[in-house]
Amino acid sequence: MGETIRVGLLGCGTVGTGVLRILEEHGDDIRARLGRDIEVVKILVRDVARERDSVIDPALLTTDPEQVLGADVHIVAEVMGGYEPARALILDALARGRHVVTANKALLARHGAELFRAADDAQRDVIFEASVGGGIPIIRTLREGLASDRIRQIHGIINGTSNYVLTAMSDSGKAYADAVADAQLKGYAEADPHMDVAGLDAAQKLSILVAISFGLEIPFESIRTEGIDRVTPADLHFARQFGYAIKPLAVAKAHDDGIEARVHPALIPRDSMLGSVHGVFNAVMVRSRALGPVLLYGKGAGMMPTAASVVSDIIELGRNIHRGTSGRLPHLAFHMELVAGRAQRDPARTECPFYLRFTVADEPGVLSRLAGVLGARGISIRRMIQDTTSELGQPVPVVVLTHTAREGEVLEALAEIDASGFVAGPTCYLRVEDIH
Amino acid sequence: MGETIRVGLLGCGTVGTGVLRILEEHGDDIRARLGRDIEVVKILVRDVARERDSVIDPALLTTDPEQVLGADVHIVAEVMGGYEPARALILDALARGRHVVTANKALLARHGAELFRAADDAQRDVIFEASVGGGIPIIRTLREGLASDRIRQIHGIINGTSNYVLTAMSDSGKAYADAVADAQLKGYAEADPHMDVAGLDAAQKLSILVAISFGLEIPFESIRTEGIDRVTPADLHFARQFGYAIKPLAVAKAHDDGIEARVHPALIPRDSMLGSVHGVFNAVMVRSRALGPVLLYGKGAGMMPTAASVVSDIIELGRNIHRGTSGRLPHLAFHMELVAGRAQRDPARTECPFYLRFTVADEPGVLSRLAGVLGARGISIRRMIQDTTSELGQPVPVVVLTHTAREGEVLEALAEIDASGFVAGPTCYLRVEDIH
Repeated sequence: MGETIRVGLLGCGTVGTGVLRILEEHGDDIRARLGRDIEVVKILVRDVARERDSVIDPALLTTDPEQVLGADVHIVAEVMGGYEPARALILDALARGRHVVTANKALLARHGAELFRAADDAQRDVIFEASVGGGIPIIRTLREGLASDRIRQIHGIINGTSNYVLTAMSDSGKAYADAVADAQLKGYAEADPHMDVAGLDAAQKLSILVAISFGLEIPFESIRTEGIDRVTPADLHFARQFGYAIKPLAVAKAHDDGIEARVHPALIPRDSMLGSVHGVFNAVMVRSRALGPVLLYGKGAGMMPTAASVVSDIIELGRNIHRGTSGRLPHLAFHMELVAGRAQRDPARTECPFYLRFTVADEPGVLSRLAGVLGARGISIRRMIQDTTSELGQPVPVVVLTHTAREGEVLEALAEIDASGFVAGPTCYLRVEDIH
Repeated sequence: MGETIRVGLLGCGTVGTGVLRILEEHGDDIRARLGRDIEVVKILVRDVARERDSVIDPALLTTDPEQVLGADVHIVAEVMGGYEPARALILDALARGRHVVTANKALLARHGAELFRAADDAQRDVIFEASVGGGIPIIRTLREGLASDRIRQIHGIINGTSNYVLTAMSDSGKAYADAVADAQLKGYAEADPHMDVAGLDAAQKLSILVAISFGLEIPFESIRTEGIDRVTPADLHFARQFGYAIKPLAVAKAHDDGIEARVHPALIPRDSMLGSVHGVFNAVMVRSRALGPVLLYGKGAGMMPTAASVVSDIIELGRNIHRGTSGRLPHLAFHMELVAGRAQRDPARTECPFYLRFTVADEPGVLSRLAGVLGARGISIRRMIQDTTSELGQPVPVVVLTHTAREGEVLEALAEIDASGFVAGPTCYLRVEDIH
């Protein structure tokens, strides 16, 4: 047995508690895999007196960062979340020669470049499997499993809250607000669910996936992001009639003229693998040149899945420490100087089929005028549903699936239609991804 | 840029050609990830004169193993298949201090222990991602991604030929022999499909998965293995009526009294993730204590997916070589001396629900006699279909889904029933796995 791997823990909330439980309950298995023990020697918390899980030794708790960063540890694991003091503490840990594990996607999405530069200067590793997809080893797969391949497309359901809400709406016919309240009751949504349902959490994760898949660092704020609050029970109903489910997607595609990245609810075939991902589950479908489609599926959040990824990262670093090595691979999978020049693509150039739900006065000639505006921009209609069950004279929905069209053209056409007299309300649009 | 990673290739059939194509076509991406180039410097073939893909430089071909093993290479990649001379050449390569990548599941399943011992003696690595699941990074996920977790169950569709045949039978109502002929026509089945359809290929792969998941090396011959040839269109029809698909499964489960491992066609819920895996696609569902279910899905065979895994393995070794390290993790994920004492479980103790299709004379009292024999062994019936559409007096199928029952008891009950006078033919049984 080699020397014990000593770890300092920054934070001891849900994920931190899970890390300690895994180290306690899986100790035998971890020792059999790593060939040595892992020991948490100090834990930074805000309040030492708070009541905690019995797995946590109160003697390890401290409110003084120096007690953790200054301790004789190989690795510092950051599971506190938020931007500060997480950023400052990680920079301090690196400067002192510690390797770092973090689960903090928000921090990476905003300050990743700074942290990775500091890690390079200190010749230390920063790894972050838990930052995307919780327990699903998607980062490792993209950085190592697919290292020989050219990744072309990513379609991910990477926000469990949004997927739970849309699943609940689809299964029960609940309205959006009721489904969110249900998710909050079950602990699947925060009291303020904005980051999740507006797509910002997914955009932060997607910016990490784009970097390690395509070698392009983009700020998550530059990813076109639309929330799931625009989806109504009616849309789920019509989508189903077309053979589709509506899922909260993060999409990235490599084109000759740049990388496309976007987060929004989308129609995907109901009988596809991603269409079968329900509730709080996450999944990422990667398409690469040689492998074709590869899908990873599992729990994208929660104490134990997230903690399992953090501990697997600690084991990985432990293996390197044991061999006296570090920097085996670039933080973001690519030697960035060798992929310089890659750029983000103008979102207006996005091409996909669109789902359009018009609300029209039920009078003769409306359909041909809608088709006329679309057709003038080269947008052709693939399928249509007109629901005429409403009372005579009342506005009725007209739902259209288009062939592949350019996003810029579609948004222009909708602006023209919504400004015209022949719709009785704003048009709802959703993108379609015909993936299998 | 660091020193080029030099590779000797043993074999240049389908997979070897794919390796050379990937190195040629993805060279820029590989360099950007690895920070150096990979070069194949010599290729062992049986026939230098054979016509080959234009990506292959004829000057690199040789029929003399010494030209490859004696060359100045860091890594030897074995893609020739079969037991010999692959085994002898790998041992020779290790003795000369080369690291080894192999895609050869049959060799690992039979001679793995010898190869890994030789690698330890030489302090070199042998890695083998392509040996299971083709392009799906399942080995890497089990060895590293799930390193912190306690793996409890594996359910895999890991033979594409068998899955294609059952999918074709299910979709088109084809009989088994016709579906096999169709698979052969499309290149999805060998001229002699026995290894695939009898489950032996899957058993070899499962023995590798069991070793790296549970720390137990078992010969693949000791895995209870049943082929898909026992599945009829009638079974697919009845399974569907119960809400199930029939899939070729490899199953392994950890129990307090040992590891259960088996390969057979099984009923799984049609609307489950694994139930959605069709055609030649493979998938592995892993259940572990902290993560819960994780599924990996993709192409389990074919030139480019398999070659992509071989090249990702070459990149992994290249990263180690760059850092002057080796032996980062044990070949089979565990330090085997730390998991000594784990054992295989008696297959008769397997417990699952069973699907039973009896062929009975359509006469009064038969059902109660069947239920009586089953009930006497504590096997209770969950659901039943009796198809009475056949001509009066002709034998009719009676199909039963049992509650969870012990395999030993079920096989005894079926032996008694089949020896009795009240069935008109042997009873067909299939196991049920109620996974989601």
